[in-house]
Amino acid sequence: MSTETPKFAFKLKTTDGMARRGEITTPHGTVQTPAFMPVGTQATVKAMYPEQVRELGAEVVLGNTYHLMLRPGAERVARLGGLHKFMNWPHTILTDSGGFQVMSLAQLRKLDEDGVRFQSHIDGQKYHLTPERSVEIQGLLGSDIQMQLDECIKLPSPPEEVRRAMELSLRWAERSRVQFEKMDGPSKGQGLYGIVQGGDVPELRVQSAERLREMPFEGFSVGGLAVGEPQEVMLRMLEVTTPVMPTDKPRYLMGVGTPDDLLESVARGIDQFDCVMPTRAGRHGLAYTRFGKVNLKNARHAEDHRPLDEESDCPATSTYSRAYLHHLVRAGEGLAGMLLTWNNLAYYQFLMKGMRDAIEAGTFEDFRLKTKADWAKGDIDAL
Amino acid sequence: MSTETPKFAFKLKTTDGMARRGEITTPHGTVQTPAFMPVGTQATVKAMYPEQVRELGAEVVLGNTYHLMLRPGAERVARLGGLHKFMNWPHTILTDSGGFQVMSLAQLRKLDEDGVRFQSHIDGQKYHLTPERSVEIQGLLGSDIQMQLDECIKLPSPPEEVRRAMELSLRWAERSRVQFEKMDGPSKGQGLYGIVQGGDVPELRVQSAERLREMPFEGFSVGGLAVGEPQEVMLRMLEVTTPVMPTDKPRYLMGVGTPDDLLESVARGIDQFDCVMPTRAGRHGLAYTRFGKVNLKNARHAEDHRPLDEESDCPATSTYSRAYLHHLVRAGEGLAGMLLTWNNLAYYQFLMKGMRDAIEAGTFEDFRLKTKADWAKGDIDAL
Repeated sequence: MSTETPKFAFKLKTTDGMARRGEITTPHGTVQTPAFMPVGTQATVKAMYPEQVRELGAEVVLGNTYHLMLRPGAERVARLGGLHKFMNWPHTILTDSGGFQVMSLAQLRKLDEDGVRFQSHIDGQKYHLTPERSVEIQGLLGSDIQMQLDECIKLPSPPEEVRRAMELSLRWAERSRVQFEKMDGPSKGQGLYGIVQGGDVPELRVQSAERLREMPFEGFSVGGLAVGEPQEVMLRMLEVTTPVMPTDKPRYLMGVGTPDDLLESVARGIDQFDCVMPTRAGRHGLAYTRFGKVNLKNARHAEDHRPLDEESDCPATSTYSRAYLHHLVRAGEGLAGMLLTWNNLAYYQFLMKGMRDAIEAGTFEDFRLKTKADWAKGDIDAL
Repeated sequence: MSTETPKFAFKLKTTDGMARRGEITTPHGTVQTPAFMPVGTQATVKAMYPEQVRELGAEVVLGNTYHLMLRPGAERVARLGGLHKFMNWPHTILTDSGGFQVMSLAQLRKLDEDGVRFQSHIDGQKYHLTPERSVEIQGLLGSDIQMQLDECIKLPSPPEEVRRAMELSLRWAERSRVQFEKMDGPSKGQGLYGIVQGGDVPELRVQSAERLREMPFEGFSVGGLAVGEPQEVMLRMLEVTTPVMPTDKPRYLMGVGTPDDLLESVARGIDQFDCVMPTRAGRHGLAYTRFGKVNLKNARHAEDHRPLDEESDCPATSTYSRAYLHHLVRAGEGLAGMLLTWNNLAYYQFLMKGMRDAIEAGTFEDFRLKTKADWAKGDIDAL
């Protein structure tokens, strides 16, 4: 038995149209793609035990560099043996660069060529996040799949502003790569992904992807989407971008999305996703099911003895009555968030497995239509 | 195989000094005593899945009549098949009468001979809770072990006031029993407990217990303690009360207590306990362990890689580092409450099992001294 740590690798197993069925290997396991990665912002997938997350079929979770650098701090996590050990998740971990949340959460942000200065939203402490420091932090955390620092701008923005941010992100990509190699990321078997930017301007997306693919990244992300633009704009950007992305590297659409976003993005060649939607919705009384979204706050469920979906393998979905879930949501009980988050992550994993199986069987288009038809059918009638 | 539902029964297996080792049978299972009953106020033991609660060794949980009558409502729970089914707890359920929380939570309370009128703290709706209605509600919930409505007064109170409340509680005990039999409680195998009152006045406690034991209750509670008086007053009341309580019926000390309260009360002949302490403390960053109480908010834990107690069978106790628990508490993450509640209920069950085993072995006094010595030793030194 070899004790050598496996190195980052991607194997494209098969395709069905633009949809891809692959496998990522990292020092902490394999990840079957297309994959949905539950978000573990502060070193915890909210309201879930880590074993539960794994049992649902998730093989990778995401940690947020911005949150973790502020609290408990990257150096502290390193002293405690790294993020895997810290959060009891011995499987693959992907971290973002911190940039996105600096721009959405931090105070007194100031961005220049070097990086971004900001103050913590927790205690006002000052930080300077550069492409080099972001990779350094992700190295301290021990992340298997790391992201370059980029500038993600709001949409809509003027095209010249989109271009400026895209060009800056490319320069930061180069600096990130240098730092990643300085930190022996490749020899540790870790991966660093470059990020395609370019807003809603097709030509800029193509330019960004073309220039990025010249760099030796282990994978490529599509960033700066799902930031307020209509779904059709996002899908149009994918349609122009994925054809110029390497076929032998994984493709990760950052921060996306609804079940329909996932389905349509896989159809356009995306392999990895992350989104707070299933976890956040679960804490707000919303359940994702095969038949769409169910609002458990709604009084129609108050005396409904039926579970969300009796055919599900997830106990949260098949065992507890809607009446009970409704009661827990109305009463503000923590178990509401625990059960609905569990249900939602189970549904997201169920959807991804369905897609993977369909791509393997060469029936992805049938699966896509059937899944959308079920959503359109809507939830069961009220009692 | 008999399909007959077992009826309420109590078997005193053995004693060791005043400490008693028994077994309660109800329509939903057996309960080994002395037993600690986790509190499931609003039809959920906060931050725990019901299967987890059972796996810890709990054989009975408590539901709060006041909360459940307000939301979701007793008639609604009955239409949904009863509380066991509603909350996915197929084991024994004990309910209180609602009286205690009416006095602590409800608005515009007005108590007279007939009962107590109040308004819901949720929406101001008016209710009238009488001894009869309390038993009726508990019957609708399908509770296995029911409590009579009583008047629980604050301590200290003037002796004449303590006597008045005690006398009223005895009259309400009779009315409760009539209603319980009218509702076929005994033939359904359910139990109704009378409640000893009498504040901090030994003579009144004895009078209350003597008059109550003339009534055909399935068990007897000691109420109106742990309401602010010193522990020694509470223990003194037990010392005068338990000797005049029937030996062939279970004895339940309501709303108690700390681990030390449990140990000292078992030493004085108590069989059942309930308390929000382990669950509430868990949501406030406090852990109970063999070596006392640990405040995970404390900065001393920030880089402590050690678990709370590596010898525990509970994953929350033995798997997660203090540093991680500290981080979760500081970050306000739900997983903090989930893990610490789990730890605390595990410790309470561990303590009760230790007491049961010691009584069986005739070594309860040794166990009591050893347990107190461990608490006195205190938590492990900081790293």
